[in-house]
Amino acid sequence: MKKVLFATTALVFSAGIAAAEVSVGGDGRMGVVYNGTDWNFSSRIRVSFTASGTTDGGLEFGGSMRADQATAATNGTAASVYISGAFGKLSMGDVVGAPEALFGDYYEVGYTDLSSMDGYGNDIMYLTGDNGGDVGSIAAATTQTVMNTGPNLLYTGTFGAFSVAASMSDGKADSTDASQEYAIAGAYTFGNYTVGLGYEYLDATFFDGNTPPAVDATGKADMVTLAGVAQFGNTSVKAHIAHAGKDLDLDYYGIGASSVFGATTVGGYVQHAKDNTDNTDVTWYGLGAEYDLGGGATIKGGVADNDLTGSDMVADLGVKFSF
Amino acid sequence: MKKVLFATTALVFSAGIAAAEVSVGGDGRMGVVYNGTDWNFSSRIRVSFTASGTTDGGLEFGGSMRADQATAATNGTAASVYISGAFGKLSMGDVVGAPEALFGDYYEVGYTDLSSMDGYGNDIMYLTGDNGGDVGSIAAATTQTVMNTGPNLLYTGTFGAFSVAASMSDGKADSTDASQEYAIAGAYTFGNYTVGLGYEYLDATFFDGNTPPAVDATGKADMVTLAGVAQFGNTSVKAHIAHAGKDLDLDYYGIGASSVFGATTVGGYVQHAKDNTDNTDVTWYGLGAEYDLGGGATIKGGVADNDLTGSDMVADLGVKFSF
Amino acid sequence: MKKVLFATTALVFSAGIAAAEVSVGGDGRMGVVYNGTDWNFSSRIRVSFTASGTTDGGLEFGGSMRADQATAATNGTAASVYISGAFGKLSMGDVVGAPEALFGDYYEVGYTDLSSMDGYGNDIMYLTGDNGGDVGSIAAATTQTVMNTGPNLLYTGTFGAFSVAASMSDGKADSTDASQEYAIAGAYTFGNYTVGLGYEYLDATFFDGNTPPAVDATGKADMVTLAGVAQFGNTSVKAHIAHAGKDLDLDYYGIGASSVFGATTVGGYVQHAKDNTDNTDVTWYGLGAEYDLGGGATIKGGVADNDLTGSDMVADLGVKFSF
Repeated sequence: MKKVLFATTALVFSAGIAAAEVSVGGDGRMGVVYNGTDWNFSSRIRVSFTASGTTDGGLEFGGSMRADQATAATNGTAASVYISGAFGKLSMGDVVGAPEALFGDYYEVGYTDLSSMDGYGNDIMYLTGDNGGDVGSIAAATTQTVMNTGPNLLYTGTFGAFSVAASMSDGKADSTDASQEYAIAGAYTFGNYTVGLGYEYLDATFFDGNTPPAVDATGKADMVTLAGVAQFGNTSVKAHIAHAGKDLDLDYYGIGASSVFGATTVGGYVQHAKDNTDNTDVTWYGLGAEYDLGGGATIKGGVADNDLTGSDMVADLGVKFSF
Repeated sequence: MKKVLFATTALVFSAGIAAAEVSVGGDGRMGVVYNGTDWNFSSRIRVSFTASGTTDGGLEFGGSMRADQATAATNGTAASVYISGAFGKLSMGDVVGAPEALFGDYYEVGYTDLSSMDGYGNDIMYLTGDNGGDVGSIAAATTQTVMNTGPNLLYTGTFGAFSVAASMSDGKADSTDASQEYAIAGAYTFGNYTVGLGYEYLDATFFDGNTPPAVDATGKADMVTLAGVAQFGNTSVKAHIAHAGKDLDLDYYGIGASSVFGATTVGGYVQHAKDNTDNTDVTWYGLGAEYDLGGGATIKGGVADNDLTGSDMVADLGVKFSF
Repeated sequence: MKKVLFATTALVFSAGIAAAEVSVGGDGRMGVVYNGTDWNFSSRIRVSFTASGTTDGGLEFGGSMRADQATAATNGTAASVYISGAFGKLSMGDVVGAPEALFGDYYEVGYTDLSSMDGYGNDIMYLTGDNGGDVGSIAAATTQTVMNTGPNLLYTGTFGAFSVAASMSDGKADSTDASQEYAIAGAYTFGNYTVGLGYEYLDATFFDGNTPPAVDATGKADMVTLAGVAQFGNTSVKAHIAHAGKDLDLDYYGIGASSVFGATTVGGYVQHAKDNTDNTDVTWYGLGAEYDLGGGATIKGGVADNDLTGSDMVADLGVKFSF
C-alpha cells in the first residue's frame, strides 16, 4: 500500500507482475428448502478468484479463494496456495487431508447441499485436514472441534496409474493451534476401476466451541479408510469402509452412485457409522437429481434423512448457477 | 474447494462453466462532509461483481454483489441472484419490495448520499423488502427493526406500457426471521408520464437492536403508495403519497425533481410524514448538484435538513468515481 | 442496488461507466516460519483491485483495495482513492503520512515480512498517517494506539528534481477519531543521490486497545526526519535519522541496503531508537535474500532479531507469488 519514492527493489519485482494472472468466477443459487418443519427461501451468490502463473523454469504456481474468505485467507485458515511441477503439487492453507484429496465425497444431494442441515450428508468423514477435519461430526453427540487452525500442507502426485497424497499440520504454533496431524493415501487405477487406501493420525486438542475457545479435552486417534470407485457406462459407483481407533472406536462405511442420462443426473448415498464405545449407531442417506439447462445453470433438488429419533426429512429444489 | 481424484460428476458441470462470466466494477468517492458541527474528510472505495449467463433455452441468469457484502451474500442477507426471460425477472436475496422496485427513490443529494446522516433523505419509505424495509425510519422515534433477515423473493415484469411487481418473504425460518411480508405494485406509462400504485402487507416481529436481538414487539401494518413521474424536456419530476394502516396510522407524501443542463444536473426533494397516533409530523428536504467530468468522474455536492428541533443542516462536496 | 423503473438520472451516469476499469491482481506466499521456539507453516493469498479512469479533461482518478479490506474500505479506514494531474496526486483513505510517502521503509526481510513478528523490522517509524502512525511502536513498552481512524488526506507531487508531500487528518469527527495530524516532506534528487526532510505534528488522543476503546491518554508530539538514498552500481543504500519531541523525547536512526546480482537480491537493515525520558534503547536488525524464479514467483527468506532481553531470533523461508 505504501507508495515510495525511495524505492530500492522495484525493479526486481516489476518483471514478474505482468506474467501471472487472476481470473474471476463464482456461483449462485436460489430456491426453496424444507427444513423438516417449513419451506423457506434460500439463495446465495459467491465470487471466487483463481490465480495462476508459471516460473521461467516451468513450475506452475497459484492459489484460489472466494471473496467471503478474504480475511481468513490472509493467514491460511481459509483458501490455499500451491506450487506444482513434474514432482506433483504442494498446497498450503485450508487444504483437505491426504485421503480426502484422493477419495473425495459422495454425490452432493440438493441445490443447497443438504448435508449442511444436520451435519451428515454426502461428505465422507475424515480425521484430518480442512483445518480441523470432520471428527466432531463422527462423534455425533458432541460439538467438539479439533484445535488445528491451519495452515496445513498437502502433497498430491500422479505417476502413471498411481496417485499418492500426504498431508500434515505443523501443530505447534500457539495456544490456539495445538493439534498435530499426519496422513498418507494412495490409489491405483486399472481400466474403469480405482481403489485406494488412506491412513490418518491425529494428536488433538479439542476446544469447547465457546468464544474464546477453552480446551475441553485432548486425545489421540487414527483412521484407516479403504475406498473404491467404478464406472459402468453412464453410472459411477463409489464405496468406502473405515475404522477409527486409539481413543476412538468407530466403524464406518458408505456407498454412493450417480448416473448421467443426457442432461439429467441422478445420484445418492447411504452411510452408516457405529460407535463401539457406547454401542450407538446411525444410518443416513440422500437422493437427488439435477437437470443441466446449459450455459452454467442447473435445476437441482433432493431429499435427505437419517434414522436418529426425532430427525425429520429435509429437502430442497432450486436453480444453481456457475459463473 | 475439494480437489478430488475420484470425480463422479465433473463432466456434467464442465461444459457450462465457461459460458457464464463475472465482470468487475466499482465506485469511489472523496471529499468533505459537514455533519452539523464540523467539516470532516470522507472517502470510500467499493468493488462490485456482476455475474451473468444464458441457458441453452435462452433464459438469462446471474447476480451481483459487492466485495464488502461477500460474507452476507453467502446466505442471501445481502446481494441477490436472478433468472429472467419473457415471463419477467425473478430475483432472490436482499431485494427491495414490489413498490420500491417500480417507484424507486428521489434524486440522491450529495456525494455521500446525505440521507444516511439522519435517517431521512431522498429515500422513499416502504414497508417491505431490503431485508427489513424502512418501517423503523417511519416511526422515527424508535430504532425498532423488522425481524426479516431474508432472503426475499421479487418478481418484476414489463408488458408493453404496463410494469408489474410482486414480492414476499418466507417469514418462517427460525427465531431470527419471523416476519411475513407481501407486496404488489403496478405502473402504467403513457407518453412522458408514468403512474403507479403499490400495496404492502407486513406481519412483523420487531427486535430491539441489541446483540443478540431480543423480540421487542409484534404488529401488523399495511401501506398503500401512489406514485407518479413526468418528464418535461430536461426535467424529471416524481411525486408520491402513501398511507400506512393497521397498527400504524401514518400519512406520508413527497415530491422530487432533477434537471439536466449539459454536464450539470441539479436535483432535490421535499418529504413530509405525519404520525396520526401521537399527532407528530416532520418535513425534510435536500438540494444538490453535480457536474459530470466524463470518464466516470463527477463532482457532486448538496445540503439536507429537516424541521425537527435540534436538527442541524448537513452538507457535503466531493468527487464520485464509477469504475 | 435498487433497480428502479422510474429512473430520473440514469442517462447522466451511463456514459461514464464504460470508460473506467478495475483490474484484478493479488499475491500469495507459502513456507515455514521460526517464531523463536518452533518452525510453523505460514501461507496466505490476497486478491487486490486497482481501479483507474481518466476524465474528459485529462485528470486521472482511481483507487485500490484488497478483498480483505472490503468492509473497512467503505468508510476510508482501509484502502484509498485518488485524483491526479499536472498538479500532483491527491489521495484519501488509509494513506501514509507525507514523510513515509517520500522515504518509505527499508528492504523487507523474509517472505512473511518478519517485522510483523515483534513490532520492529524494516519499517521506518513515522508519527502520522496509516490511520494511526507507528507511534505506539516507538514507545515500545506500550500498546497505545493513536485515536485517528481516518480517512486521511495525502498530497504528493514531483516537479523536476524536487518531490514534495503534505498530509493531514481531519481529526474532528467523533468520539472515536479525535487526533489531529499534519505533516510535510520534501526530497531532492541529484544524479544517483536523493536527500529528503520531513516534519510531522500530532495532537493525539490515545486509546487503550480494549473493545470498545477507552481514552487512555492525550498528548502532543512532533518529529523531524532526515533521510537519504544512494545508488552505487547494483547496490542501493538508504539511511535516516529522526528526533521526536514535545511530549516524546526519542532519538532514532537506521541504515539499510539491498544489492541485486542477476536473479538474486540480498538486503538488510539496522535500526536504533533511544527513549531519553527513561533512558532505554533498543537496536534491531534483519538480513534477507531472495531469488527471482520469473513469472511472478520468488524464493525469499531472512532472519531478524533485536537486543532486548528475552527476545529470540526469528526466521522464515518460503515462496512468494505476485499475480
